[in-house]
Amino acid sequence: MVEVDRGLPLEKIEEFSLEELLGMAIKAEIGAAKFYESLAENIDIEVLKEKIRFLAKEEKKHEAFLRKMYRETFPDKEIIFPKEHIGPELQPVARKLEEIEDVIDLYRWAMEAEKIANEFYLKLEDRVDDEKTKRILRSLANMESAHYFTLKADYELLLDWEMYSQMMHIGP
Amino acid sequence: MVEVDRGLPLEKIEEFSLEELLGMAIKAEIGAAKFYESLAENIDIEVLKEKIRFLAKEEKKHEAFLRKMYRETFPDKEIIFPKEHIGPELQPVARKLEEIEDVIDLYRWAMEAEKIANEFYLKLEDRVDDEKTKRILRSLANMESAHYFTLKADYELLLDWEMYSQMMHIGP
Repeated sequence: MVEVDRGLPLEKIEEFSLEELLGMAIKAEIGAAKFYESLAENIDIEVLKEKIRFLAKEEKKHEAFLRKMYRETFPDKEIIFPKEHIGPELQPVARKLEEIEDVIDLYRWAMEAEKIANEFYLKLEDRVDDEKTKRILRSLANMESAHYFTLKADYELLLDWEMYSQMMHIGP
Repeated sequence: MVEVDRGLPLEKIEEFSLEELLGMAIKAEIGAAKFYESLAENIDIEVLKEKIRFLAKEEKKHEAFLRKMYRETFPDKEIIFPKEHIGPELQPVARKLEEIEDVIDLYRWAMEAEKIANEFYLKLEDRVDDEKTKRILRSLANMESAHYFTLKADYELLLDWEMYSQMMHIGP
C-alpha cells in the first residue's frame, strides 16, 4: 500500500493569491517531474518506462512555461512557494516496485493528481484577464487531461496483470 | 482549406457486424498512423514533429492489438475491411504545410477523428461479452482520449501563432 498526502481540496484555491497559486503550480510540476522520473527508474515494465519518462519531460516543460508566465505577470518578484499543496502531493518513488499492486496504487494517485491539475489550471484561467495567459493555462489543462488518459489506458490493462503481461510479452 | 471526408455518423455502428466493425477499426488505425507519419513529415515545427511521430507509433500498436483481438475472436477468418468509415477519414498529407491555417485545419480534423475513435471503442465494448476484450477496448478508448487532449493542447496554442512561435522560439 502506497501512502500519499491528499493535499488540500480544490476549493481552497479561493484562499490564495495568484502569486501563491502560480508558485504552487510550479512546485507541483517540479514534484510531478521528480515523481515520474523516479517511477520510471523503479518500474521493471519496459513499455511503461518510456511513457513515464515522456510524462516527466512534459512536466519539466510545464514548469518552464509557468516560470515564464510568473516573470511576465510579476516582474522583479521572487517566486513564493507556499507549503500548501492542492491535490495529492506526489513524492519520489524511493524503492524498486516489486509488486504490481504498488504500481497500480501509484498509477491511481498519479491519475488523481493529473485530474486535479487539469481542474486547477482551469480555475487559474478564471483568475487571470490577459488572453495569452488564459490560452496557456487552457493548454496546460488539456495537457494534464492527456496525461490522465494516458495513465488510465495503462491502469485499465494493469488491473488484469495476467492478460497485460501476456499482451506485452513480459515475464517467462 | 483542407478537405476531409466526414464519414458515417457514429450511430451507423448499429448496422454493422462485430467483424465489420473490427475491420473498420483496423483500417482506421492504419489510416491514422499514415496520416500522422505524413503530417510529421510535412510540418516544419520541430516541437510538433516529435509528438506527432509518437501518435503514429501508438496507432500502429493499436492496429496490432486489434489484429490480435480479431484473430482470437474470429479464428481462421480473414479480416473484412468495409469500404465505409465511421467519422472523418484522415488521408495522408501529400504536401509541405506552408500555412499555419492548414496545420490548424488538420489538427481540428485529427481531434474530431480521435474523439469519434474514443466513442467508437466504447460502443464496441458494449457489443462484446468477454471481459478481457472489453478491457482492451476501454483502454483503447482512453488512449484515443489522450491523443485528443494532446492535440487540443497544441491546437489551443497554435490559434495564437505569434505567441506560439515566440514561446517555442520558432522563426527569426
